[in-house]
Amino acid sequence: MADVSLWVVGSIGIDDIATQQEQRSDVLGGSVTYACAAASFFAKTGAVGVVGSDFPNGFIERYRRFGFDLAGLQHRPGSTFRWAGVYESDMINRRTLKTELGVFADFTPELPQSYRNAPYVLLGNIGPVLQNHVLDQAHGKPFVALDTMDLWIRIARSDLDRVIRRVNLLTLNDAEARLLTGRHNLRDCAQDILEMGVQFVVIKKGEHGAMLVSNEGMAIIPAFPVEHVVDPTGAGDCFAGAFMGFLAETQAARIDSALIRRALRYGSVVASFGVESFSTERLEMITRADIDERMNALQLMCQWE
Amino acid sequence: MADVSLWVVGSIGIDDIATQQEQRSDVLGGSVTYACAAASFFAKTGAVGVVGSDFPNGFIERYRRFGFDLAGLQHRPGSTFRWAGVYESDMINRRTLKTELGVFADFTPELPQSYRNAPYVLLGNIGPVLQNHVLDQAHGKPFVALDTMDLWIRIARSDLDRVIRRVNLLTLNDAEARLLTGRHNLRDCAQDILEMGVQFVVIKKGEHGAMLVSNEGMAIIPAFPVEHVVDPTGAGDCFAGAFMGFLAETQAARIDSALIRRALRYGSVVASFGVESFSTERLEMITRADIDERMNALQLMCQWE
Repeated sequence: MADVSLWVVGSIGIDDIATQQEQRSDVLGGSVTYACAAASFFAKTGAVGVVGSDFPNGFIERYRRFGFDLAGLQHRPGSTFRWAGVYESDMINRRTLKTELGVFADFTPELPQSYRNAPYVLLGNIGPVLQNHVLDQAHGKPFVALDTMDLWIRIARSDLDRVIRRVNLLTLNDAEARLLTGRHNLRDCAQDILEMGVQFVVIKKGEHGAMLVSNEGMAIIPAFPVEHVVDPTGAGDCFAGAFMGFLAETQAARIDSALIRRALRYGSVVASFGVESFSTERLEMITRADIDERMNALQLMCQWE
Repeated sequence: MADVSLWVVGSIGIDDIATQQEQRSDVLGGSVTYACAAASFFAKTGAVGVVGSDFPNGFIERYRRFGFDLAGLQHRPGSTFRWAGVYESDMINRRTLKTELGVFADFTPELPQSYRNAPYVLLGNIGPVLQNHVLDQAHGKPFVALDTMDLWIRIARSDLDRVIRRVNLLTLNDAEARLLTGRHNLRDCAQDILEMGVQFVVIKKGEHGAMLVSNEGMAIIPAFPVEHVVDPTGAGDCFAGAFMGFLAETQAARIDSALIRRALRYGSVVASFGVESFSTERLEMITRADIDERMNALQLMCQWE
């Protein structure tokens, strides 16, 4: 099998999700699931994660249909990580009802030989100690993107700071950017994060898009206005997976702000499909052509003249 | 004196404003003040409003320096409308501490002869009965934009519906669009509002920009990311004033979605200056060249390739 050009580490979960309209139990979730599904439209992507003995074969089958490389997937006796949550009517704020770590509690990510030279890495949202550990196993100088969340900013700040210094791009949402820096204005937040040692900062604003800040300046990344949001879970993971997949697809010799912008727009578009269903169901129904069609529609909406 | 090409009706007030950083008393405010100041960079604009005997000559002097036509300004014995409010740290949510109507309580807007044939009209945020009354005095078929607020949606819905049917463009913020339509998704809100009989719907999202919806489709209007927001009061009025001023400047024979988009981007840019100070102080320091320079910077941030 060909080596992967991108690998993603993170959580794999079985979720119970309720919105104000609908609820679903035992759906395939986790940051690896969403990010690899999104990336797989663009590049051969390896999944680094852990599942328990209760993980349905049907879910593995869905991974295979997306084309995930599964050499980095660990199978362990015990229960898969489970999460349950309920969204408020704004489809943004949510309350966690249940978190059962299961086999994820003892997860130590190990990088298969075939992933070690991959030129692109996405450190999905797991504890920064694990992110550091798995990054230690990569060879060469991959382009590394890091996702994180409020929990790690609060309880594992020094480990998080260490991994931040090792990555090229940090993606986080507006509230997390404020928590990380103690600043309110997002331009100020981004500037402070650049000074922590990353090259590119991507602040996600959900339905309002994202902003990219680097030493080359700032870019505004639009969100595609979704008509019917069914489930926002995993939107940030789809966004990150798609933009890293796009970067891996280009195999560009030089990664500059203009290229990251293009990649982030793909992130926006793939995330807009992702939220149109529970789990990865909508992503299972689309092709790269659908993504490009929506990209063209987004471009028309943003056209300057 | 040359006839005005745009007139604006609305409130004129003396405000006490507190943010988490600073507080200021007795500042020049009101929707007419902000909107006419913003419009005056582009077109000869008439102000239709009322002030009391306490209204400082210095404020009139500031109006004159912007170039407002003041034939529509009524001077009445009594107190000018006064408003006091305090902003939360997000610079979005605010609490009203005081509203003293003064001479505004009996305000009946009258249109000077020299305004009656103006091709552009901005009905700023005042009661819809007054908006209908003043619009009755206009001749011909001006292009009319309407601004409103949650209060009128709640307490004067049938009058508001009547004025909505008479205008070409409705501008309102996301919360107001939801209140007006009972829908949550902003695309749905916009669609419902189009069906109420307006040609263009502009939903404002503050620092996240705005969206334009018409039968020609949807457009995403970016906000210029402001480094230091000092006071957000009047941002929506500046936005509306500037885009109507721009339309008036173009004197276009046909107003289509592409032209409205360009106009709304000017609205965004002028509003971004407006929030950099209390009152119209920042607008008093800039020229049309500063606006165009920031427009170029915004274009670079949004560049597709």
